[in-house]
Amino acid sequence: MAQAPGEIEALIALMARLPGLGPRSARRAVLHMLKKRAVVMDPLAQALARVAATARDCRSCGNISDYDICPICADNRRATGVVCVVEDVSDLWALERAGGFKGRYHVLGGTLSALESVGPDVLRIPQLVARIESENLREVILALNATVEGQTTAHYIAEALAPSGVTVSALARGLPMGGELDYLDDGTISAALAARRQV
Amino acid sequence: MAQAPGEIEALIALMARLPGLGPRSARRAVLHMLKKRAVVMDPLAQALARVAATARDCRSCGNISDYDICPICADNRRATGVVCVVEDVSDLWALERAGGFKGRYHVLGGTLSALESVGPDVLRIPQLVARIESENLREVILALNATVEGQTTAHYIAEALAPSGVTVSALARGLPMGGELDYLDDGTISAALAARRQV
Repeated sequence: MAQAPGEIEALIALMARLPGLGPRSARRAVLHMLKKRAVVMDPLAQALARVAATARDCRSCGNISDYDICPICADNRRATGVVCVVEDVSDLWALERAGGFKGRYHVLGGTLSALESVGPDVLRIPQLVARIESENLREVILALNATVEGQTTAHYIAEALAPSGVTVSALARGLPMGGELDYLDDGTISAALAARRQV
Repeated sequence: MAQAPGEIEALIALMARLPGLGPRSARRAVLHMLKKRAVVMDPLAQALARVAATARDCRSCGNISDYDICPICADNRRATGVVCVVEDVSDLWALERAGGFKGRYHVLGGTLSALESVGPDVLRIPQLVARIESENLREVILALNATVEGQTTAHYIAEALAPSGVTVSALARGLPMGGELDYLDDGTISAALAARRQV
């Protein structure tokens, strides 16, 4: 489609590859930016250039920030001896939004997958084992997704950590907030029943 | 929400203001960029900076491109004596995608609105009148949206052009391609009936 000039068309094509945007919505977004160049496009271009120039993976936990050691790992108040293992940076952000966790994280960057040849080294599992000693960890919380891939990976990590003697725990299973039995899957109901608590 | 570092959070907030993106999808898009910095974020940051630096309104028609005079106005093969008046650059792109029009455009940048104090000068209507003589126009096609605002503006422009003696036409009204009578509104059906053609 040659309806927009070259540079603009190239920008639309790149925007269209972002998740949640297609060619149509990318065109709308770019057009909106073009019409508000001073208040929308320029600040966005500057913010994106800044983040592109400074963003990097935390050398300790794998979180993404502007520093070699992310603010969470750099915060000594979070040296609680408890590390929460997540698949992805988005999961770390979700836990931080929820707010309940005060320790540090370890971001795997995915799940084990023989098909896509994602092995333990790619997922930074050796680094997790090393952190048990170097940070004197008491507990590792496996906060992986409740999917087959997530649980397979959790099982592997639990085995890998067993020799160290560290306590390994996992997020509880049960009804989500606002969940109605009639709409929940059998697996969730069974798990909630098995993990029932005295009130 | 302080879950992501400052610069990244600022980028998410700016992305969330684009049409079609909310806070959630902006976060997903930014995270996708952060995870593919070399192949997604860097090219996008460069393309956006380039467009932000070079994009400008065409001095003649109001189209947006990298030049003071856009490629359509600069193309002498399009000096057909016919100008198509559209509300917005997105409408110009839509007409170019459709492909049937070989003349030049005039982008109003909106519709007349007393409430938002958008008058004829803001919509570049005097410039349109001036182009009739300077470009020796035979016909002005009003390709405004079939909305109340679009049609009010079309009516005003037709009146403003009347003294010049130029032919003023408007897009036909009727069934859209694939339209089914049962699902179309009464206005469209009435318009299609009134504008019926012998076959």
